Amino acid sequence: MEGCQQTLESFSWRAESIYPDREIVARTHEGKQRYTYSEFTDRTRQLANALDSLGIEHSDRVGTFCWNHDRHFETYFGVPNMGAQLHTINPLLPDSHIQYIVEDAADKVLFVDPSLAEKLASAYDPDAFESVEQFVIIGSTVPDLPLEPLTDYESFIEAEPTEYDWPNVSQDDMAGMCYTSGTTGKPKGVEYTQQMMWSHTMAMLTPQGLGIQDSDVVMPIVPMFHVNAWGMPFAATAAGAKQVFPGPAPEPADIAHLIEEEGVTIAAGVPTVWLGLLEYMEENECDLSTLDSIVIGGAAAPKAVIEQFDEFDVSVVHAWGMTEMSPVGSVANLTHDLQDAPYETQLEKRGKQGIIVPGLEFKVIDDDGREVSWDGEAFGELLVRGPWVTTEYHERPEANKADFEGDWLRTGDIVTVDEDGYIELVDRADDVIKSGGEWISSQELENAIMAHDKVSEAAVIGVPHERWQERPVAMVVVSEEVDRESLTEELKKMLRGEYPKWWLPDGFNYIDEIPKTATGKFSKMDLREQYGDEELLEENAPTEAAPGDR
Amino acid sequence: MEGCQQTLESFSWRAESIYPDREIVARTHEGKQRYTYSEFTDRTRQLANALDSLGIEHSDRVGTFCWNHDRHFETYFGVPNMGAQLHTINPLLPDSHIQYIVEDAADKVLFVDPSLAEKLASAYDPDAFESVEQFVIIGSTVPDLPLEPLTDYESFIEAEPTEYDWPNVSQDDMAGMCYTSGTTGKPKGVEYTQQMMWSHTMAMLTPQGLGIQDSDVVMPIVPMFHVNAWGMPFAATAAGAKQVFPGPAPEPADIAHLIEEEGVTIAAGVPTVWLGLLEYMEENECDLSTLDSIVIGGAAAPKAVIEQFDEFDVSVVHAWGMTEMSPVGSVANLTHDLQDAPYETQLEKRGKQGIIVPGLEFKVIDDDGREVSWDGEAFGELLVRGPWVTTEYHERPEANKADFEGDWLRTGDIVTVDEDGYIELVDRADDVIKSGGEWISSQELENAIMAHDKVSEAAVIGVPHERWQERPVAMVVVSEEVDRESLTEELKKMLRGEYPKWWLPDGFNYIDEIPKTATGKFSKMDLREQYGDEELLEENAPTEAAPGDR
Repeated sequence: MEGCQQTLESFSWRAESIYPDREIVARTHEGKQRYTYSEFTDRTRQLANALDSLGIEHSDRVGTFCWNHDRHFETYFGVPNMGAQLHTINPLLPDSHIQYIVEDAADKVLFVDPSLAEKLASAYDPDAFESVEQFVIIGSTVPDLPLEPLTDYESFIEAEPTEYDWPNVSQDDMAGMCYTSGTTGKPKGVEYTQQMMWSHTMAMLTPQGLGIQDSDVVMPIVPMFHVNAWGMPFAATAAGAKQVFPGPAPEPADIAHLIEEEGVTIAAGVPTVWLGLLEYMEENECDLSTLDSIVIGGAAAPKAVIEQFDEFDVSVVHAWGMTEMSPVGSVANLTHDLQDAPYETQLEKRGKQGIIVPGLEFKVIDDDGREVSWDGEAFGELLVRGPWVTTEYHERPEANKADFEGDWLRTGDIVTVDEDGYIELVDRADDVIKSGGEWISSQELENAIMAHDKVSEAAVIGVPHERWQERPVAMVVVSEEVDRESLTEELKKMLRGEYPKWWLPDGFNYIDEIPKTATGKFSKMDLREQYGDEELLEENAPTEAAPGDR
Repeated sequence: MEGCQQTLESFSWRAESIYPDREIVARTHEGKQRYTYSEFTDRTRQLANALDSLGIEHSDRVGTFCWNHDRHFETYFGVPNMGAQLHTINPLLPDSHIQYIVEDAADKVLFVDPSLAEKLASAYDPDAFESVEQFVIIGSTVPDLPLEPLTDYESFIEAEPTEYDWPNVSQDDMAGMCYTSGTTGKPKGVEYTQQMMWSHTMAMLTPQGLGIQDSDVVMPIVPMFHVNAWGMPFAATAAGAKQVFPGPAPEPADIAHLIEEEGVTIAAGVPTVWLGLLEYMEENECDLSTLDSIVIGGAAAPKAVIEQFDEFDVSVVHAWGMTEMSPVGSVANLTHDLQDAPYETQLEKRGKQGIIVPGLEFKVIDDDGREVSWDGEAFGELLVRGPWVTTEYHERPEANKADFEGDWLRTGDIVTVDEDGYIELVDRADDVIKSGGEWISSQELENAIMAHDKVSEAAVIGVPHERWQERPVAMVVVSEEVDRESLTEELKKMLRGEYPKWWLPDGFNYIDEIPKTATGKFSKMDLREQYGDEELLEENAPTEAAPGDR
């Protein structure tokens, strides 16, 4: 039985039909824009007609290079509803990555924000961009840039009719695409079928996801080039919620004003966004009374942030996911059992990566493929599967072999699961130290070392060892006046109190700085390159701490 | 890309993993039973092993003939998770229908409640039941009945291991089946794929559906043989909610006790269940304080019932659906705009069939296939489509031709849609009267006539008319002492005030009773058979009321 299809079009249809007058508001390059779902869906059909006129067909890729605003949102439905594939490109990537991505995806059209047009022009390379038949500046004027042929969005769609018969799209058709930039190698393309995006949208609507309702005013601060802004624009549309888009590079003041002026009830972004807002609020009057919850993802939600927002009666909801997962996999909602738990216990749970969303499954396995116990202590690699988890990368057979096991995605995250089912990230698989058949979390040791007030930064890496396969070595950054020898003794003593003897680093090396990746994370790959294993081993002959002591 | 599959197994996995200790409670033939999701899922695997041993294979059909209890619930996951198809049979059907259904579905096993075993034995026919290889009495003893071979459920599963490797089931595999018994012709089999049931479950979790959470205690009073008890056992499992099953033929006292003792927060059933509970509460102390909402479906929710439960702070949620729709299509939640509307307005909306659930689409078309306007007045036939709407009946090509248009299901319901998007049923397509190119709702006229205190019952049917195609004629039941001539004048006068002149019935015929269907509804088919069209026309020559007067 070829049943009815799961497509995004049902969501835009519902918003237009049931909530024609509900608003969509955007901070844009041209000031604040405001219209309704009725006008929005009219414009998605104008866009589809324009793309049709250009010759865009079923399964062609349409790229965007944009911030969060109403016109970017129009591509979110206009492109997939016509059976084409929306490819959102991260404009913050290095030029070489952008070239690789556009060439790999073979985008036929590129929509570009005015403030990002120069960046795109600098990445422009005639060979890599050969597939691109049209550049469209998101605005109503055309800048003088070497992007050919170039038009502006309003000219592109204005003459088009607002009627368009959406074709019968299959749930297996590709609807979206996003590249994940790993720390090593070329970016990998993740493609989203209609079914994946439909499923993720339904999951985000559930109370186990984000529980979005028509009374909500939803503001994704997480960029729309970043895995569909965590799927929030789709879920908000399905619910008939009001939507607020914060536009190009929003500052804390912009976010505060939008919350106040538009009555935002749920907003989503990475931790730095919320740290910025908290800082802003120390100096400025800010009314958060309409805000029910903020969704934090992309990195762990610091406990202090959760506590500070609790004081404003704003609930921090910590969510975890991956580009490969459309992206949300778990949400740290409090389960029924924990509703009356002490605040400290609740805080601990809310800071974890959370409870798996209905519809997905996961397992955590050790090196031998055995599932580890759910005791909050044992850790292993997290594998997930489900209707919105991809099972392959775009034309990357070697990555597919490494990162998938049947329909299971190897997340590369090393996690524990506690008795209540909360997942907690403890390390990346590339960074975890495998010693004497057991695993040591480099991140836990780093955090413990960095908790010492004399330490500015610390990274722990595994170095090869004849007997124990690998042993941890700490790379520590301190200011000049610190006595390193006595600090080493202090750190050893401190760690001995918290961890098994065999977890203790075999050496503490003091260096000037920890090399960072483009996104500001510690680059252990660079660290290993700069400080060769042999050198580290020689300096730190393992004597006292050996896994045999367990 | 063959992505990950949408299967029910992910929901039972989640409940077992995250909520192993959450309870499942059932009122059974053997008293109140109580266990946990952990024990439940162990038993679903024992059941699968037992079915395996019997030779049940992928896509074989397994029938149930049971009330709502824990063991019936075990078949809900045990059967589809192993790739077989669960076929729930309505034990209240006439023997001939049961014979037809078992033969048509070719069930290989039948699970039977002790209190329904005699009923099944009476329907038993060796030819029709030829496919059945095993009868299993839901209990721990075997009655003396001519059902061969016969065993009991506990003996069937007790020796089986609690381990079972669920196979990789496809989302296109058939997971469920239920027959819809129309008023005419043979019952039609509706089959549910894994994807349909998965999608429906996700939709029921959303706040736009029922918004079930892990803190909920869910009690489906709607029978589990009736379209999966509206899907509530699946949604409750996905959420990790506590579940309460009210067992065989629950009386209002049973329902009241279960609500009190188990802290039920959400219960679901047809209006008569709730009328019964309200009556019971007039005579008995009853604590409904844990109850948040009751879901009413299967027939319109009377306003008086909604109002009475409002007084107990219990929210009546009116839902509409069909066997063909897994079954829920719309829920009469109040939209954002109506949250502050006057109580009377809210009551009117809450009594309608409601707002379409996200993921589905609908349209309302007139005789020419044109969509009618959403003004709460114009009406037409309701067509729906979406991932949990079937696109065909089991081996019924003639019904498929009549009831489907591409991927649209013709519901056979005549509805209006108001400006806020609320659907309201006004008639069945078979009963609506088509007069002068316009439609007249027989149900509206009936309700208006029955509102007169001298009228016991009334049905309005269309009779053929040379000029206007059809004209309405009223069939009225009154007690003997009523003067029929003056009543007719009163009714005409009353209707003239409420409806256009051409809606007025051309005749009022007084009869002894309105014939009823097996489920107690007016049988207009029988009415037409008993009172031939010509006879009615002769008696009621249309003179004054003609559609031309519009």
